Parts: sequence; C-alpha cells; structure tokens
Amino acid sequence: MSLVIVGSVAFDTIVTPRGRVERAIGGSAVYSSMIASRFCRPMLVGVVGEDFTAEHRGILEERGVDLEGLATVPGGKTFFWEGRYGADPNERDTIVTELNVFEDFSPKLPGSYLSAEYLFLGNIDPELQLSVLEQFPEKPVTGIDTMNFWIEGKPEELRRVLEKVDIVFINDGEARQLSGEKNLLRAADKVLSMGPEVVVIKKGENGAHLFTRDFQFISSAFALDDVLDPTGAGDTFAGGFMGYLASAGDINSGTLKKAMVYGTVSASFTCEKFSVERLRALDIEEIKRRYNRLSDMTRFDRE
Amino acid sequence: MSLVIVGSVAFDTIVTPRGRVERAIGGSAVYSSMIASRFCRPMLVGVVGEDFTAEHRGILEERGVDLEGLATVPGGKTFFWEGRYGADPNERDTIVTELNVFEDFSPKLPGSYLSAEYLFLGNIDPELQLSVLEQFPEKPVTGIDTMNFWIEGKPEELRRVLEKVDIVFINDGEARQLSGEKNLLRAADKVLSMGPEVVVIKKGENGAHLFTRDFQFISSAFALDDVLDPTGAGDTFAGGFMGYLASAGDINSGTLKKAMVYGTVSASFTCEKFSVERLRALDIEEIKRRYNRLSDMTRFDRE
Repeated sequence: MSLVIVGSVAFDTIVTPRGRVERAIGGSAVYSSMIASRFCRPMLVGVVGEDFTAEHRGILEERGVDLEGLATVPGGKTFFWEGRYGADPNERDTIVTELNVFEDFSPKLPGSYLSAEYLFLGNIDPELQLSVLEQFPEKPVTGIDTMNFWIEGKPEELRRVLEKVDIVFINDGEARQLSGEKNLLRAADKVLSMGPEVVVIKKGENGAHLFTRDFQFISSAFALDDVLDPTGAGDTFAGGFMGYLASAGDINSGTLKKAMVYGTVSASFTCEKFSVERLRALDIEEIKRRYNRLSDMTRFDRE
Repeated sequence: MSLVIVGSVAFDTIVTPRGRVERAIGGSAVYSSMIASRFCRPMLVGVVGEDFTAEHRGILEERGVDLEGLATVPGGKTFFWEGRYGADPNERDTIVTELNVFEDFSPKLPGSYLSAEYLFLGNIDPELQLSVLEQFPEKPVTGIDTMNFWIEGKPEELRRVLEKVDIVFINDGEARQLSGEKNLLRAADKVLSMGPEVVVIKKGENGAHLFTRDFQFISSAFALDDVLDPTGAGDTFAGGFMGYLASAGDINSGTLKKAMVYGTVSASFTCEKFSVERLRALDIEEIKRRYNRLSDMTRFDRE
C-alpha cells in the first residue's frame, strides 16, 4: 500500500554539547518519509527553495522517496531552523526560525498520489491539513501530528481536522493542553471523543501510549546510552508507525501494536546521530533486530 | 521463604487538592510490609512511640505482618511527617518532619528473624543498614532503598552497603546523583560496578528499568485515571518486588521480571486512595488481575 507524507522540508543547524551540524536536511516530512521508506514507498509533499540542490534531493531519492510532490519555488529559500540543546537532550532552545518558502506552502498533490490508501499529515497549519484531505477522491487512512502553536492559534480548524482523521500523534503536554485534562488517560479519552479512532500520546524517552475505544497499548522507549541529537525523533516515530501500517495493509489491534513498536525503535535510531545521518544507513533488518530486542526487554510471563 | 523488612513507621498528614488525612499510618516499612504480606509473611523491624496504639498495630497484624521486631519507646512519640501535593501529583512539599523516636532508631532483630532468606532495608541511614546486615549469621538476599540525603551525607557508608547487597532500588534522579552520569544506562552500569547484582531504577509514572550484568527489563507503569495520593508508591514497589521474590524462592531472569511487574502494579494500588487504605483491602487475586492486564497492554508479537 502507498503512503503520502505532507510536511516541512528544511535546513537545520543543530548545536549540542557534543558537536554541531550546519544546514543539514531536516523537517517533519524528511524524517518521516526517510524512515517510512524502510517499510513502503512514501510519496512526499512539501516545498523548498532553489538552495535545495540535486544533492539534497538525492538523499531522499536514494531511499526511494517519491519526490513528484516536492515543489521548488524559483528564487526562493528553503525553510531554515537553528536549535541548541543543553546537557539534557530534553531541553532545546530555538535560535532562528526562517519560514521562507514554507510561509506560503499550499500543498498540491500530483494525480499519481491521489489513489494512496494511507496519509500522514505532519505538523502544519490545520487549514492546510484540511485542504490536503479535500484533494482525495476517497479518504485514505489518515494520521496527523499537531503542536501547541495550532492548539492555541487555530483551535476550531484543528477540531475540524480531528473529526475527519483516524490517528492522532500528540505529545503528553499537547494532549493535556488540547483536552484541558491533566491526567493522561482522561486527556486521551477526551481527544478520542473529538473524532479519531486512535490517539497516540508520545512521551519522548518514556515511550508512547496508544488509546482506542477498545484497548490500550503502552510501548517503552528503546533506551540509548548516548543521545547525540533528538531532532526529528517524533517525526520518525510517526513515519515508522504509518510506514509499517501501510505495509501491513490492515488496521487491527495486532498491527497497531506492532506499529507502536516500530515507531518507537525508529525514533531511537534518529537520536543516535546528527540530522538524518543514521536513517540514511538504516535497513529493515536492523530495525527488526531492535524491535525484537525491545520485545526481549519488556516481555514477561503471565500469571 | 521469609522476608525481613526494616524501615520507618510513621504518622503521615497528607494534603492534596482532593482531600486530606490526618496522622494516618505510613512510613517505608509499613507500605512495603503491607504489600509484601500478599505474597509472604513479612517480619517488620521498626520503632514507634506510645502514641502508636493497639488499633494501629492491628492494621498491620490483620495483614499478617509479624510485629515482634517493632519496638515501642516508653513515653516516646512516633515519627511524624506532613506533606502537601500540588495539582501535579509529582510535586510535593514537606511541611513538617518530626523524627521523634526514629531519631535514635537502632534496629535490633529478634532471634526468630535471623533465619530469614530475604531482607529489605528501607531508606534509612546506611550505618543502620550495615548494622542490620551484621546481625545475620548468614547473609539473606538483600534489597535496599536509599535517597539523596544519604548519597550526599554518607557517601562512604553507602558505598560499603552497596558492596554487600544484591538489589538496589533507586529513583532516576538519585541514580544520576550517585553515579555522576546523566544518561540512565550509564548511571545503571556505574551503580552495578559498585557491587549489587541488580539495579532497579524507579521512574514514577514512567515505570521502572531493571539492570543486571546479563540483561535488562523495562516495566511500564500501570496508568491510572485518578491518582489520589502517591505517598508510599516507591515503598510499595519495593515491597511488592521483594515479597514476590521471597515467595518465588528463586532468583533468575524470569522471577526478576515478574517481581518488576508485581512491584509496578502494587505501587499503582497505593496511589488510588489515601495512606494505606487501598492496601488494607487488597487481595492477591486483584493484584494478579492487574498484573495480567499490564501484560495485555504491553505484549506484542515478535518479528
């Protein structure tokens, strides 16, 4: 099955106590499509400037990402972000955000994308998310990401998106903000009541918790002894989750649980090196080995 | 197999946004022995004042806790603690600490305790922990808890304890402090190098992570939709863990994993009501049901 991924394509400058990279490729659509490509053939929708060269496109193409939906704005500059991490990888300051061509992003899907059965809408303006959904003659299985900026700034538009989608990826703080509930189970219940069938609450190094109306599933994170750069971990989680689901071709409790674990181990790889470096060299066998190691570390006998 | 538990016995006044209790029984030895009693017959070692009445003793006795090692100081007053929680149950302020008879606690084990095969040393002065170990003609399988106060205040004495014990229970912040390592896997490695065979890092609502030289095991917490009072959750975790191990009578990767899950679900019950109220009414079948529910919520198919 095929998976359309819509989101940001960016250059990131990332500074950590252990080193830095300058203008490396990043953005939600890049991280999620690079990992999804280990499971299926993702079709990317995004926008870049003329500074996004053939070499940059090559990083995605060598992974088999379809770039027909990646628009280039003549004379434009690609979205640029600079961030700095402290000794604790959970603490991050944004130093520079230059939206550039992303400011006027208006996703247009090539005809060849419109028969996709799966769709992941990265963290973009809910109005754009709605406009993407409207382009499909038949609604694909849709997962979305969002953030506090849209929860505060466009609550009604976001509500309309939530009514139409199947899976929501959201972190714990955002789930509390969106629902007005401090307790995570109550927060998840409230988000489910807004429409989606599946709510996935991401908790960073503390794993992720999936909720449906019928069951819950908790995935522990795959702990690392060295976190070099956590940028893109959440996008990689969603990309691994949606990529596995698209490859499985069926949504049930078994495939949703496996999608959670694939998302979890996918995110762990991203943190091991700067930018998408670790994802470039990753194959499905490595992912499966880590998947099974997480099974070894969490499975226990019933009583 | 039998389990000796040494620690504090206290009166707690606990204030939360949802209510308060006045001078309810608490303390590490109380929480851990009340839950351990669902698995084996715990033998408590502690000290109280004359204000600790037959009624208070009855709360422990009705659970089958052996109180031969509970000393009463004539004319003395029992350790008193008052704490206040904010809207976030992870935020707690200590309002009052009156050590009273606990200040001169010098644990003496009755002869009938000295053949116990398992020992849990709650969070007390490492010098007292050493003095308890020395009373045993044959060293039992020993688990200890500790805290930042002793890590800072008696580092050398604590190191001597760590060389002699089998299992260390410690929370994530304390593990970082004790090891000087920010990363949890490295912190655990360093604590293992100090002597114990097993290091259990408790992460509150984010579960717990067990480390040995041969394997790791991660337990997700059992999420609750209502946390009324988290006081004693860590002590209940250790009591459930050690109580199960003592009942299993063998230490191997299978029993250690099960001990982790029993500790986890035990702690969840404590948080559901104030003080030890939930533990008073708890039976082993309820514990096993929740144990199996946690298995349902975390188990996934291998690849």
